[in-house]
Amino acid sequence: MRAEIIKLLRKHAHEFVSGEEMCRCFGISRTAIWKHIQLLRQEGFDIEAYSRKGYRLLGEPDCLFPENVAAGLVTKVFGNQIDYHDQINSTNERAKQLARQGALHGTIVIAEEQLQGKGRLGRFWYSPSGTGIWLSMILRPKILPFEAPKLTLLAGVAAARTIQQVAHLTPEIKWPNDILLKGKKVSGILTEMSAEMDAINFVVVGIGINVNLLPEHFGPELEDIATSLAIQKGEKISRVQLLQCFLLEIEALYEEFLHNGFEDILAEWKQWTNLLGRRVKITMLSHEFFATIVDIADSGALVVEREDGERQHVVSGEVSLDINA
Amino acid sequence: MRAEIIKLLRKHAHEFVSGEEMCRCFGISRTAIWKHIQLLRQEGFDIEAYSRKGYRLLGEPDCLFPENVAAGLVTKVFGNQIDYHDQINSTNERAKQLARQGALHGTIVIAEEQLQGKGRLGRFWYSPSGTGIWLSMILRPKILPFEAPKLTLLAGVAAARTIQQVAHLTPEIKWPNDILLKGKKVSGILTEMSAEMDAINFVVVGIGINVNLLPEHFGPELEDIATSLAIQKGEKISRVQLLQCFLLEIEALYEEFLHNGFEDILAEWKQWTNLLGRRVKITMLSHEFFATIVDIADSGALVVEREDGERQHVVSGEVSLDINA
Repeated sequence: MRAEIIKLLRKHAHEFVSGEEMCRCFGISRTAIWKHIQLLRQEGFDIEAYSRKGYRLLGEPDCLFPENVAAGLVTKVFGNQIDYHDQINSTNERAKQLARQGALHGTIVIAEEQLQGKGRLGRFWYSPSGTGIWLSMILRPKILPFEAPKLTLLAGVAAARTIQQVAHLTPEIKWPNDILLKGKKVSGILTEMSAEMDAINFVVVGIGINVNLLPEHFGPELEDIATSLAIQKGEKISRVQLLQCFLLEIEALYEEFLHNGFEDILAEWKQWTNLLGRRVKITMLSHEFFATIVDIADSGALVVEREDGERQHVVSGEVSLDINA
Repeated sequence: MRAEIIKLLRKHAHEFVSGEEMCRCFGISRTAIWKHIQLLRQEGFDIEAYSRKGYRLLGEPDCLFPENVAAGLVTKVFGNQIDYHDQINSTNERAKQLARQGALHGTIVIAEEQLQGKGRLGRFWYSPSGTGIWLSMILRPKILPFEAPKLTLLAGVAAARTIQQVAHLTPEIKWPNDILLKGKKVSGILTEMSAEMDAINFVVVGIGINVNLLPEHFGPELEDIATSLAIQKGEKISRVQLLQCFLLEIEALYEEFLHNGFEDILAEWKQWTNLLGRRVKITMLSHEFFATIVDIADSGALVVEREDGERQHVVSGEVSLDINA
């Protein structure tokens, strides 16, 4: 009902809509209308009310209602279907569920808040309400499972472009899936897939972007390693605009990947990364070692040179830049 | 209730159990007992009945009741948990569902009949009631997604060993996932996974073995390309024994893979295959070409030599042996 009320008020932008007209439209009492208006105000809508004139919409909160996201979105397919949640455990889990039920390529899941937001390898991704982009996309690419890691790199490039365009900040990408600002994590990507050995059923690309989180959101535990666009910029950033830009960029990159291959995207990824030529500590399942990062392979693997001069591909593991050497 | 009745009769193997005792045990009427006995007979149990003596179990059908499978199964983990169905759409779909709900490594799903049995790339696998092994196993290996195709090859070796040991027939493996007898398909493997880019959530290895299907099961459409152990052997094969043997073999191979690597398993796979050195037609998504199969790579990919002498890895596609050349 509240979505309907907002639609009506939006249609009459800058004009008053009388309480009487709204009662007729929705078949509910003036008292009921008033209660809905109060709740909308609590959600951040700025609604003026005069007893003789009615109601007028002055401003909207920066929330990711599907109609807000769809208005002005110029993608072809990405975001054509939007599954929106005020609160959800995990957008990736929801997207996988929808994908299993047959949701179309390009469907997106967005939430204002994730209670159990997921990072890589089962880690937690802090996703407080109304502060970030907590997004998962369903893709059905006709590629082989071993090529799927390229989608993580591709999403990283889309996120970096978006942050630069919308927030005018210049991020760095840390292999495989982190976007950093001044060395602190501002965005992370979690790509999951369901596949046969030689065919992908579906891929879910999840991305979290810390947009308007404040220092008090992070607290002492996280403030040294995480940041937000608002903290770095010193002002709030429009989440709707950021989301629309990201969807447009990732759709463009995805189409380029399918039609022209991965070469140019990888080249751009290398320009965004802070890793090439650096000496790092690499932690794999059971052991760690020091190495210099030489390149990123076509497969998306890290090419490193160990201290004994031998070159090695790293497909999984952690890279620590912060070493005393 | 019928499972309980069978358990009681089994406990008193070769002895009569009186109807009166059964009434006491189960708290139901003699008429009800009699109806259950009639249904059990229809299911293939051979039960003798005399009015003064009661009931005696003379023989059991070859069905895959968990208690039949568990009796004499000497694996460590595989098959410790059995999810049994008289009829199911697809054991792989069911196994994926259980895995998402947290089912343990080694859990198996078996069914007497699959209504929508799945083959590779969405194809149908014909799975009529009581005639085959329609099995899916849940595995949680700590390997990277790109290594998962090795599990298909490993399962193929386990199936080949099992067919040789139990049916005394010598099958051939056709890359990537078919087991053939006299050039006709007797078994197929469908491996699916849910994964992040650098960690597997779970793998489901599904296998269908045509055990006791008769020529009339296949009909003219399938009889040229498919066969069963019973057709090749000229007699029925115990499905329980075959299933137990397969679980033991695949568990042994799986442990060898994790502890000693894939080398020896791949070497054995090469001995079972009919492909090495053969000239074949390879069909990939959009094109086909002729080539000679030179080797299988460590990754599980086919190494082929094209007519122009160039070598190529084939990770996905169809191999046709039946070419006019």
